[in-house]
Amino acid sequence: MSILVVGSVAFDTIATPSGRVNDILGGAATYFALAASYFTEVRMVAVVGEDFTPEHEAVLKNRGVDTRGIERTQGKTFRWGGQYLDNLNEAKTEFTELNVFEKFQPRIPKEYSDTQVLFLANIHPTLQAAVLLEMDGVRLTGGDTMNFWIQGTPKELAETLKLVNVLLINDTETKMLAGEKNLPLAARRVLTMGPNALVVKHGEYGATIFFREGAFGIGSHPFRAPALPIEEVKDPTGAGDSFAGGFMGYIASQGEINREVLKRGLFYGGVMGSFAVERFGTERLQNLTRGEIDARFQIFRELTHLE
Amino acid sequence: MSILVVGSVAFDTIATPSGRVNDILGGAATYFALAASYFTEVRMVAVVGEDFTPEHEAVLKNRGVDTRGIERTQGKTFRWGGQYLDNLNEAKTEFTELNVFEKFQPRIPKEYSDTQVLFLANIHPTLQAAVLLEMDGVRLTGGDTMNFWIQGTPKELAETLKLVNVLLINDTETKMLAGEKNLPLAARRVLTMGPNALVVKHGEYGATIFFREGAFGIGSHPFRAPALPIEEVKDPTGAGDSFAGGFMGYIASQGEINREVLKRGLFYGGVMGSFAVERFGTERLQNLTRGEIDARFQIFRELTHLE
Repeated sequence: MSILVVGSVAFDTIATPSGRVNDILGGAATYFALAASYFTEVRMVAVVGEDFTPEHEAVLKNRGVDTRGIERTQGKTFRWGGQYLDNLNEAKTEFTELNVFEKFQPRIPKEYSDTQVLFLANIHPTLQAAVLLEMDGVRLTGGDTMNFWIQGTPKELAETLKLVNVLLINDTETKMLAGEKNLPLAARRVLTMGPNALVVKHGEYGATIFFREGAFGIGSHPFRAPALPIEEVKDPTGAGDSFAGGFMGYIASQGEINREVLKRGLFYGGVMGSFAVERFGTERLQNLTRGEIDARFQIFRELTHLE
Repeated sequence: MSILVVGSVAFDTIATPSGRVNDILGGAATYFALAASYFTEVRMVAVVGEDFTPEHEAVLKNRGVDTRGIERTQGKTFRWGGQYLDNLNEAKTEFTELNVFEKFQPRIPKEYSDTQVLFLANIHPTLQAAVLLEMDGVRLTGGDTMNFWIQGTPKELAETLKLVNVLLINDTETKMLAGEKNLPLAARRVLTMGPNALVVKHGEYGATIFFREGAFGIGSHPFRAPALPIEEVKDPTGAGDSFAGGFMGYIASQGEINREVLKRGLFYGGVMGSFAVERFGTERLQNLTRGEIDARFQIFRELTHLE
């Protein structure tokens, strides 16, 4: 099944202990699309400015991403600047220039109307809901959000969560959304808000998927994929979006959604996140092979596999 | 193989969001011994005061622990008081009364001289080294330490680390010991200090074991055991020592040390830690059955197992 991602395209200025880059192609939808492109056909809905060149678009097209949903408009593309100091798990934002992203109104091309798997990257929950209501025939919807919306637009987010099948957020966001500090209890509370499944991303410790009782007909036991301890983290930007791209992309590539597919998806998410951080920006995601991906999948599997 | 643990016996006063208990039996050696007792014969070397009653000793004896190495001396037993506030991962120490523990000089009974597996719980590194040098014929030595010794007695600790085969510490301690913030790099540096293997305990995220190249003849790939997300954490005290008891106890119960044994040991460590936190103090560790332990082992295994 093809997958549609709706979210941001950005130019990022990033400083990490490994170096500094200026105005490189980024944004949640970009990382997601590149990561998912190794598993299935990917479509994108986003907005860019006049500074988005054919060379930028080629990064996506070279991976077979359908870019017809990327709207070009007057002005500059969304820009973000941040630095990672000692703690590579947390970016310190230095500037945010929303530019054309400020008035982003996702428009779904007619050619995308047969989309069966949808991912709503981290944008205003009202925009997420608008996309969802516009799309018929979607079999599986994944979504992301962040502390900004959890605290700033809780009512709008609550409406969106009723429509999302699988929510992918991190530990802190899960606890904040639930108002509960114990993770499994927080997860259970989030699952009463709408989603059938909740993927909690633990950064370097992997991810856990929790299920609503009866969801997908596969019982309510959580499962967990570990992450590979990585010696060289050059740039953590986009790790979570790459995780989501690997997870959702793998699921979309399979005919059905069952426990084993979701579990393997969780491992593939971790694999794509681990590749993303090895280079600045999207560099590592541009030129992978499925062979490299599956080799790392085996390493992840081996990491926790008991005979 | 039987296992000998050298460490503290204490009376703990603990407050958590679930309640408060006063002067209950605790201490690293106690948690370790009870957890390990489900796997193999356990011997203890520790010191207690006049307030250590036959009822306290019965807790250990009922689990078959050989208490001949527990020295009784004039004065009061080591006391610790702490509380866990919002963050159940971190205790705030309220008081520490070393009492008889202040002059603890571990004495190994003759009956223990055939010990093949030794665990040095968190005590002064010079005492750890003294025990090690006194014992012949030990095939495997595990050890613990903490930030207090890493910062306060680095030279003494360095000498001890040369003699320890498997070091069990947490993420923060690993990074502090190595002076390196990337975990796998820090682990690699710790492995140059002596140990053949390093178990890094990640709390609710499980644990990872790193190997020195060539150690145990099993290659240098790390592996990782996840922890079960636990909804009800009543009292985190002793979780790390219970982990160590399950890990070392399982290994001691096996004839040989290989990759699969160490890996299963890591899972059993997580299992025993998860039981420990379900009740205050050692309560849950006193009345388990091997059937309950193996059932949870299967849940842990299932949690990450790919077909």
